Amino acid sequence: MISEIADPREAVATIFNAAVAASAIGSAWELGLLDEVQSKKEVDLEEFCLRNDLDLPSMQMLVTALEITDILVRESGERSAVIPGRLLEETIITKSLFHWLMIGSAGLFSRIPHVIRNANRAGTFFTRDPIAISEACKDINEQHFEKFFWQAMSGLDQQVSCVVDLGSGSGERLVQILEKHPAATGIGIDISLEAVQQAEFDTSNRGFGERLSFVEGDARDMHYQDEFASVSLITSFMFGHDLWRRDSSDPRKNCIASLRKIREAFPNAQRFLLGDTTRVLNCPESEFGVTGKSVPAFPLAFELGHDLMGECRIPTMEEWIDVFPDAGWRLRKRHLVQSSYLSVIFELE
Amino acid sequence: MISEIADPREAVATIFNAAVAASAIGSAWELGLLDEVQSKKEVDLEEFCLRNDLDLPSMQMLVTALEITDILVRESGERSAVIPGRLLEETIITKSLFHWLMIGSAGLFSRIPHVIRNANRAGTFFTRDPIAISEACKDINEQHFEKFFWQAMSGLDQQVSCVVDLGSGSGERLVQILEKHPAATGIGIDISLEAVQQAEFDTSNRGFGERLSFVEGDARDMHYQDEFASVSLITSFMFGHDLWRRDSSDPRKNCIASLRKIREAFPNAQRFLLGDTTRVLNCPESEFGVTGKSVPAFPLAFELGHDLMGECRIPTMEEWIDVFPDAGWRLRKRHLVQSSYLSVIFELE
Repeated sequence: MISEIADPREAVATIFNAAVAASAIGSAWELGLLDEVQSKKEVDLEEFCLRNDLDLPSMQMLVTALEITDILVRESGERSAVIPGRLLEETIITKSLFHWLMIGSAGLFSRIPHVIRNANRAGTFFTRDPIAISEACKDINEQHFEKFFWQAMSGLDQQVSCVVDLGSGSGERLVQILEKHPAATGIGIDISLEAVQQAEFDTSNRGFGERLSFVEGDARDMHYQDEFASVSLITSFMFGHDLWRRDSSDPRKNCIASLRKIREAFPNAQRFLLGDTTRVLNCPESEFGVTGKSVPAFPLAFELGHDLMGECRIPTMEEWIDVFPDAGWRLRKRHLVQSSYLSVIFELE
Repeated sequence: MISEIADPREAVATIFNAAVAASAIGSAWELGLLDEVQSKKEVDLEEFCLRNDLDLPSMQMLVTALEITDILVRESGERSAVIPGRLLEETIITKSLFHWLMIGSAGLFSRIPHVIRNANRAGTFFTRDPIAISEACKDINEQHFEKFFWQAMSGLDQQVSCVVDLGSGSGERLVQILEKHPAATGIGIDISLEAVQQAEFDTSNRGFGERLSFVEGDARDMHYQDEFASVSLITSFMFGHDLWRRDSSDPRKNCIASLRKIREAFPNAQRFLLGDTTRVLNCPESEFGVTGKSVPAFPLAFELGHDLMGECRIPTMEEWIDVFPDAGWRLRKRHLVQSSYLSVIFELE
């Protein structure tokens, strides 16, 4: 952490340059540079700029930002030859977290002085880039949840027949489930009509036909429909915290109410795999609370971001576990998701 | 620098959390928290939020971002009592650099993947927040240039009579000069009509009357006017790099042409104090070039930002010195501005 840098001027310069590098990481990923350096082991920057029609002086400086932070290295003497730095591997794992922060959520974090004033916190008081956020979340899911999700899936003592995914986003998870389980059907539910339409479009040529459908709906307020009768498995990833709605009522009560509605809307669901990132900051009472010296990438932005947006309050692991009995769910198993930061998959029944 | 943090996961987490902290620094300055902690030595965060009508959960997390980076400290046991951290002093000096980067320039740095594509680099391809930028620049001037500016002024072997300030912005420098020199008159020239009108408005009640005026004009393309005849001193701060216009012609040639025009527009100017920040990155040929391990706060963002905007090419110290003879100016003295990063004030005649 920053405390390892003794000289104050150097420490503050490190913070500053890291912030520039954070933008550079998100950008270099989107531009394809990070993946290309990783796979080819050496990229000629001038050729890369020509091929992708990019401004070379800006790219040179972007690489300098990544060089200062040990992510990329310029081969000595060869200003244009870029090779992996010692942090490239870990940066590839976390690149989408940086993209989420610096590109998708810039409209939020760059307007903190406005957003944080109570007088402004009504109506549309911030904007984020939904396409960038969705791209980042796809990779966050892949880098951090995927492996643990399939472990949890393979541990289920049930046939995968009809799956509903709450907060289905791009629909990618359902696609993968249906590919692995040729007899299964899937329903994606998302609050964003655009996401639903995009998912329908993106999956339309995958040959699933009537096995896969997407519905616009608020998973915080589910109601039974006939087509839900056959649902035997519920999944939900990077969405559960939205159930802890922060309004005039208590977030905990809101979560319990939503979980109860989910229980009632899918009366024949045998399992609910609920994967999410829990609060770890400013909660010394939690077993998983972290402090200054050991804060991993993401929680700081994830928790501050949601506090700023004000729509929900990210719960701790213990707060989650505490609501299940009151919400009509039994916790069968807790799969800890140990990637560069901590998440969890609750297996409920 | 980041290289001092051995563990890759911890190093990347440090980069990530520093980026969040960078937003928090700019925001905490704008909200008045940094100055209050510095002056009062202890601030009750709950009281601060009540008094300023701010969202407390968000402020708690904002302080956590500053705590993780050693800028603020929570008194043990007292979650609400915030005191200075070991980096607060250096952060106060550099706060406006962070504000410039994370708040004023967010529209640029968060859109790098768009801005860097040649196909998009025409018309209005980025936006910045001009009010935020101008607020930041006022403090950058105060923290970094002010002391050295007055040293250079006091070393002038001439009476300060009629001063023109190129890129006059808020007009604050002229106000200070006129306050110190009661017989002097001042003319501010700025390319932004809004800045000119704002400066006129802000200085209208300072009692300078006809001693102070502001004119909309492009300092890169000055032409003689009768009221310029009496100008004996030219000043220009944080603006000179704009003379190095990056267009179909060579930036160096553009700068020489602009400096010549300035010489001709103010034929009786005895001195020109030109203060600016020079290029230090990716220029091993420069005496002042810095590399990975010793890059201070600001140059990375300043140089990348201007490369992205594409309007000018930040010159090195040597490139500046090289143009003066061809542009009709003689370098009398070079005042190095050694604050947390390097700038320079050229004293020309």
